[in-house]
Amino acid sequence: MPVNLSAPDPAALKAVAGIELGTAKAGIRKPGRRDLLIARIAPGATAAGVFTRNRFCAAPVQVCRDHLATGAGVRAFVVNTGNANAGTGEQGLAAARETCEAVAGLMGCTTNQVLPFSTGVILEQLPIDRLVAGLPHAIADLDSDHWAQAAESIMTTDTLPKAVSRSVTVNGRAAVVTGIAKGAGMIRPNMATMLGFIATDALVPQELLEQWVREAADASFNRITIDGDTSTNDSLLLVATGAGALDADGAGGQAAAALKAAIIEVALELAQAIVRDGEGATKFISVVVERAGSPAEASAVAYAIAHSPLVKTAFFASDPNLGRILAAVGYAGIDDLDQTDIDLYLGDVHVATRGGRHPDYREEDGQRVMKQAEITIRVVLNRGEMTTTVWTCDLSHDYVSINADYRS
Amino acid sequence: MPVNLSAPDPAALKAVAGIELGTAKAGIRKPGRRDLLIARIAPGATAAGVFTRNRFCAAPVQVCRDHLATGAGVRAFVVNTGNANAGTGEQGLAAARETCEAVAGLMGCTTNQVLPFSTGVILEQLPIDRLVAGLPHAIADLDSDHWAQAAESIMTTDTLPKAVSRSVTVNGRAAVVTGIAKGAGMIRPNMATMLGFIATDALVPQELLEQWVREAADASFNRITIDGDTSTNDSLLLVATGAGALDADGAGGQAAAALKAAIIEVALELAQAIVRDGEGATKFISVVVERAGSPAEASAVAYAIAHSPLVKTAFFASDPNLGRILAAVGYAGIDDLDQTDIDLYLGDVHVATRGGRHPDYREEDGQRVMKQAEITIRVVLNRGEMTTTVWTCDLSHDYVSINADYRS
Repeated sequence: MPVNLSAPDPAALKAVAGIELGTAKAGIRKPGRRDLLIARIAPGATAAGVFTRNRFCAAPVQVCRDHLATGAGVRAFVVNTGNANAGTGEQGLAAARETCEAVAGLMGCTTNQVLPFSTGVILEQLPIDRLVAGLPHAIADLDSDHWAQAAESIMTTDTLPKAVSRSVTVNGRAAVVTGIAKGAGMIRPNMATMLGFIATDALVPQELLEQWVREAADASFNRITIDGDTSTNDSLLLVATGAGALDADGAGGQAAAALKAAIIEVALELAQAIVRDGEGATKFISVVVERAGSPAEASAVAYAIAHSPLVKTAFFASDPNLGRILAAVGYAGIDDLDQTDIDLYLGDVHVATRGGRHPDYREEDGQRVMKQAEITIRVVLNRGEMTTTVWTCDLSHDYVSINADYRS
Repeated sequence: MPVNLSAPDPAALKAVAGIELGTAKAGIRKPGRRDLLIARIAPGATAAGVFTRNRFCAAPVQVCRDHLATGAGVRAFVVNTGNANAGTGEQGLAAARETCEAVAGLMGCTTNQVLPFSTGVILEQLPIDRLVAGLPHAIADLDSDHWAQAAESIMTTDTLPKAVSRSVTVNGRAAVVTGIAKGAGMIRPNMATMLGFIATDALVPQELLEQWVREAADASFNRITIDGDTSTNDSLLLVATGAGALDADGAGGQAAAALKAAIIEVALELAQAIVRDGEGATKFISVVVERAGSPAEASAVAYAIAHSPLVKTAFFASDPNLGRILAAVGYAGIDDLDQTDIDLYLGDVHVATRGGRHPDYREEDGQRVMKQAEITIRVVLNRGEMTTTVWTCDLSHDYVSINADYRS
């Protein structure tokens, strides 16, 4: 059961001028489900992406990087579920390129203007014939109001589609930002960490868009973790069609600031939705590390906690076995950490001070917080002034079931 | 259910001249179980230890380090389960010292000749009164043949006691090596990773013993992982009583070589027993990384695989979803890794070559290996000449149950 997450209201999802979306049932892995998405993008759009740092990156990730590097602009992207096209060697690269060629032929653009994305099982060849056969059906379905269907078509082990819209108006000029994403396992920081597509109808210069996509990923998808695994396919694409009224270069920086804030908001809500729908998640956990000596130190401590199976199972059990959090702080890799500097809070409860149990801490207070569906762990290192936040979920029986049964 | 592990045969456990062991029910956490162990060591023994690198180390770990550093020799060690005396601040340190004082008073040695060890729940004060009240009972129980009872008394979530003996004879002079250990979760490499006590009746100079305890830990306890968590209390103690016939300095290096090999064998068998009895384990997995560019690289890849919840749940399910292994190789942090260099074997089955699925690989072959209780994953990086092996287990429903219910 996802934690405080519901399916997006299709009426609340705003169309983005210059983008249409179409889905089809291509039978990539299993028949009868919408597993193919095409987005048609009007000429003149800018696009920028961030991709997995996994050295075993999938064929479509390599092709995306290559096509974006040509500077030819983006006229379409195509996403399939059911098969990740990763660990597929030269044949996989050829399949990703062939997908783009087929889309280009049907859409009347060049192959390098098409970006391919795949998600699903690794180490199996992409059934390119079925995928290509599905393309005309997806194209026939193209519609600017199909964001909800698009969000649904890219789901794998997600239990709910993830889609978010925001609008901004600066000096009477409006822009829309709409995004979709899919999780839900194999999520780890410092990567684009899933598939995410965010589009705006504003006009944004290429250089600015490239900066924003990195900043948006760093503030959102790069700060979530479910199981510490990093996918071979993680990608975040940011597209600005320029078909709307807002120019990011206008209004003396105001337009850019408002638009960037909206993009980060959309990215953050999508990223948090992925955690809320984390495989088997029953709790949404914010790990806040304060007064660290450096950003790297804050991050190391936050992820040591967020990745600890012992911490995560304790949260699943609502068991305030909070020493597990302190143990994780201790092995985060800070060589000169002094445990007597450390304070630990669970929600509003001061659990530990100077590295030991707080004299006023009562187990029933910890228990009260642990039972909540949304919990904040706050570790104060008292070593400096850096703060970071990471979002994660608990580790439940269902995580094991989902990942033990995924392919069956 | 532990994987191919049974309780040690008490008849096969050899007494170590110069060491007696006694246990008692002190009611540290729950009444009615043997939760206190004392070992009495004859004068003249040498001792050396390696301890957790967790910065949040427990009070007894700090006291052990302090007492060993005085060079006063070791006359006793005392172990309690049920409470880790970690995250307990100054009061915890005082409790660990008080334990040693009480033992010293009863045994007629100095406080710094006593080493304290604790394992159990973190962040709760040690019930020092109950512990001290239990000491006379443990002392009354002292016997050189109590290794099996000792192994049982230090168990926490272990399902079976772990104890191993070896003997060596060099030029007609015999020595015994006997060890006990406890796991079973919160196990991670680069630490002593649990409680382990190994003793020999050979005569071993202090300097050599210190070198051996590090080598033994590196070859065994530092190469196992269950959940990637590092305990606050991990400790390995190596004691050489010198009460037997063998002198490690004798026989022109032969005695030292044979004895060291036996100590490493005991350490390795204990460490592997911890993995076999890993919380919820149903499979014993050896991860072998070959032809790495450096030891650090080999280790990083081995642990990325061994820590991946996705890999571990796939093994639990006997599902040859082997792309998850390649994905873990890809995020192990080797920046210039070329996926087209990599070969992957599962048991005797060649799964992937040059980063892609091997043309001869058939899923039923992978499945056959996955169903075995003991599985070797072999990754050949083709970057250099370094090889390493790490041992781990799968991630099952029972891991979640055990760690969700641990304190209840």
